Amino acid sequence: MPKERTVETVIDHIDRNRDRYVRELIELVKIPSISSSSKHRLDVRRCAEYLQHELERIGVRKTRLFETDGHPVVYAEWTENAGAPTVLIYGHYDVQPVDPLDQWVTPPFEPDVRNGRLYGRGSVDDKGQVFAHLKAVEAWLQQTGTLPLNLKFLFEGEEEIGSANLDGFLRDNAALVRSDCVVVSDTPMLARGLPSICYGLRGLAYLQVDVRACASDLHSGSFGGVIGNPLHALVHILDQLKDQSGRIRVPGFYDKVLPLESDERAALAALPFVEQQVLTDTGAQALLGEEGYTTLERLWARPTLDLNGIWGGFIEEGAKTVIPATAHAKLSMRLVPEQDPAVISTAAASYLRSLAPAWATVDVQVLHGGQSWYDPHTDPTFDLAAAALCKGFGVERIAYIREGGSIPFVRTIADATHRPCLLIGFGLPDECAHAPNEWLDLDNYHKGIRSSAYLYDELSQLPTLG
Amino acid sequence: MPKERTVETVIDHIDRNRDRYVRELIELVKIPSISSSSKHRLDVRRCAEYLQHELERIGVRKTRLFETDGHPVVYAEWTENAGAPTVLIYGHYDVQPVDPLDQWVTPPFEPDVRNGRLYGRGSVDDKGQVFAHLKAVEAWLQQTGTLPLNLKFLFEGEEEIGSANLDGFLRDNAALVRSDCVVVSDTPMLARGLPSICYGLRGLAYLQVDVRACASDLHSGSFGGVIGNPLHALVHILDQLKDQSGRIRVPGFYDKVLPLESDERAALAALPFVEQQVLTDTGAQALLGEEGYTTLERLWARPTLDLNGIWGGFIEEGAKTVIPATAHAKLSMRLVPEQDPAVISTAAASYLRSLAPAWATVDVQVLHGGQSWYDPHTDPTFDLAAAALCKGFGVERIAYIREGGSIPFVRTIADATHRPCLLIGFGLPDECAHAPNEWLDLDNYHKGIRSSAYLYDELSQLPTLG
Repeated sequence: MPKERTVETVIDHIDRNRDRYVRELIELVKIPSISSSSKHRLDVRRCAEYLQHELERIGVRKTRLFETDGHPVVYAEWTENAGAPTVLIYGHYDVQPVDPLDQWVTPPFEPDVRNGRLYGRGSVDDKGQVFAHLKAVEAWLQQTGTLPLNLKFLFEGEEEIGSANLDGFLRDNAALVRSDCVVVSDTPMLARGLPSICYGLRGLAYLQVDVRACASDLHSGSFGGVIGNPLHALVHILDQLKDQSGRIRVPGFYDKVLPLESDERAALAALPFVEQQVLTDTGAQALLGEEGYTTLERLWARPTLDLNGIWGGFIEEGAKTVIPATAHAKLSMRLVPEQDPAVISTAAASYLRSLAPAWATVDVQVLHGGQSWYDPHTDPTFDLAAAALCKGFGVERIAYIREGGSIPFVRTIADATHRPCLLIGFGLPDECAHAPNEWLDLDNYHKGIRSSAYLYDELSQLPTLG
Repeated sequence: MPKERTVETVIDHIDRNRDRYVRELIELVKIPSISSSSKHRLDVRRCAEYLQHELERIGVRKTRLFETDGHPVVYAEWTENAGAPTVLIYGHYDVQPVDPLDQWVTPPFEPDVRNGRLYGRGSVDDKGQVFAHLKAVEAWLQQTGTLPLNLKFLFEGEEEIGSANLDGFLRDNAALVRSDCVVVSDTPMLARGLPSICYGLRGLAYLQVDVRACASDLHSGSFGGVIGNPLHALVHILDQLKDQSGRIRVPGFYDKVLPLESDERAALAALPFVEQQVLTDTGAQALLGEEGYTTLERLWARPTLDLNGIWGGFIEEGAKTVIPATAHAKLSMRLVPEQDPAVISTAAASYLRSLAPAWATVDVQVLHGGQSWYDPHTDPTFDLAAAALCKGFGVERIAYIREGGSIPFVRTIADATHRPCLLIGFGLPDECAHAPNEWLDLDNYHKGIRSSAYLYDELSQLPTLG
């Protein structure tokens, strides 16, 4: 059968099995694989085992769970096409926490289909995207008994908590992950109907600040006026993190930031990006940001600092007159080339501690970090991926984008392999990743499966490492 | 039997029943009568009914629960001593919330005796002090079959939430509470072995601030840099509440504050108050406060503002990269004569709202308030009370003190009756009222019962309203 005909047979199969693919994804999303929560440790493992079993079921028979100091790595390979190139597919099976739970319309781990959307924690980030590849592989193997190239699969369980053990895994298993190209599906498309390849990710430095002033909570009537209140110290310290214009005041924060080149600024400006859409998607009243940069530049190519959580004292219904003993905050910085997360974390921790009043103790913990990543996307591999996306989605063009989020693995594998990383995600910007009511557009899920099937065909043209 | 002999018989009885009084108090402290929590509504009622039953059991047979829009008022009277003066005893049977629960050594509603202390929520504030009166009354009635004066009892269930319904109750039942003197036992002694009469209380204005910036929580990678973060707005707003020196920046806040008179300043300076003890009791590293005032002046006669709680975003274990939709804080101001809680609340709410950035909504709710109170303590009733305390505690002198906390009832009843209010409390400053591991010194509990028994005898000399 001619090659073109073969691909179309696979695509036909995918189109006929659309509903089954949704039902099967629902089973995966049901597993509460929250990597940050020690009480979900066994659920995370169960999710890894579920994926391992799925890989074997669809015909990828060489599979293994690699233990780490944290959650296991699911590794698998199908390498029966001698002489063909080898592609490594990366995704993650862990998910974000679910609070605030009361804002979910349906429970986060009871996936629910409404209006062509699958609601559930991890539906888009990243279980739906992982499954898009598994379904494409399944279709190839069911229809043709083979794949047009060799595939390796690496699904980690710690992406949402900074991939702390992945570097060690990659170091210990360098030969295993050796490949001609890496494919990552964990990024959004710029807009509906516009499949996108992402060529830049921000890095991350995540800290927790703990302020302590006295031994236990005190009555604010009996002690108010003479005892330092850690909540006041905390809000004062946190308010020193940025100046009035939003500029981050951590000493040295901007020192290593690479400026944007004018040709990239022009390319970003040409993207069909609608600012109003961000307001609609978020319900925000206005867009803000750093003077002298566009919204996309602020999101993709400029570093930021956000408080992610704050707590202390009495936070229940009613009125309790207490001076608490402690106050706490979590904050993270999104970093860009060439900011180093370790250097930035150290600088931020020192700065935070330097703001402590004499009567309070300020402790700073570094919770996690990750490097930013940037690829000039000039390698011809990008053109092959673009062609697959156009066919998979039935469109004429794709967008080259960057992403404000962080996937620490990408930088690690790119540095290790010196091969292109294709960040091809099938999510939409408003699918509430990390927020209540996360959802996956089921039409994009289907087109993602189609695109993956085309992608394997296109990438079979890659030169091999030899 | 000579009068002096009669009192000593009652005191002997009290000394012989010391252990039983502790066992009986434990039953009262077991009831989780948290007035601020709607889920404890029935427990609060159960506590009121328990007190009503106790009053009847000890021989105060005219009792009644008065319904209010909130929790019931327990009212009782023993008025069988025609021609003798009538004293109204006020206390409260509701308690503060118990969080942070994990800091309690033993559960808050499973009272535990350790080293002569009774640990449990409400043990000192205010169940132990209410029970000191009930046990003194019981002893008088058991030993003599009568009381040396007439007593009325008013125990409310909303003191910890601002006594919102007490004003209405007092207005509707003015004749019921008519009395020659009011006794309140809900304040601490200045120090162990130094019984104290309190002649001033601070008022209170308690607010909640809610900041909202977008419709739901957002991924800080996908939106960080262009979407306003309500946590940043909140810490900025809250940090504007005081200047560097701690002076409160709410416009007009200090306008009505009465300055301290020089003779009162001298009296306060002469009190045997040890600053080091505050550091020991609280574990604080230093005492702070308003320039130009002593620690006692700051605590008792100057207004303050304290954040009582703050929350927003991700506050669990681990690291979640979220820009939350909302951020919240609770704060309260302690007020002094002649600051009005309603005026101050309005000014603070306006000021907080005025600090809102254009991209966020700041809502302020007034949760509760209460007037301050001050009595120059020149009425001879104070001398009678001082004599009773000296005999009850076996000491030569007492202290006249003020108190940093708030008991809204006192101002209300003082304004209504134009009679002296005796604030005679048996707590110690370090008994963790409002905090985890609240405790009551059982020796003071016993001396409080003795003092109450002496007090009824002393106050029988009061002139009656006639």
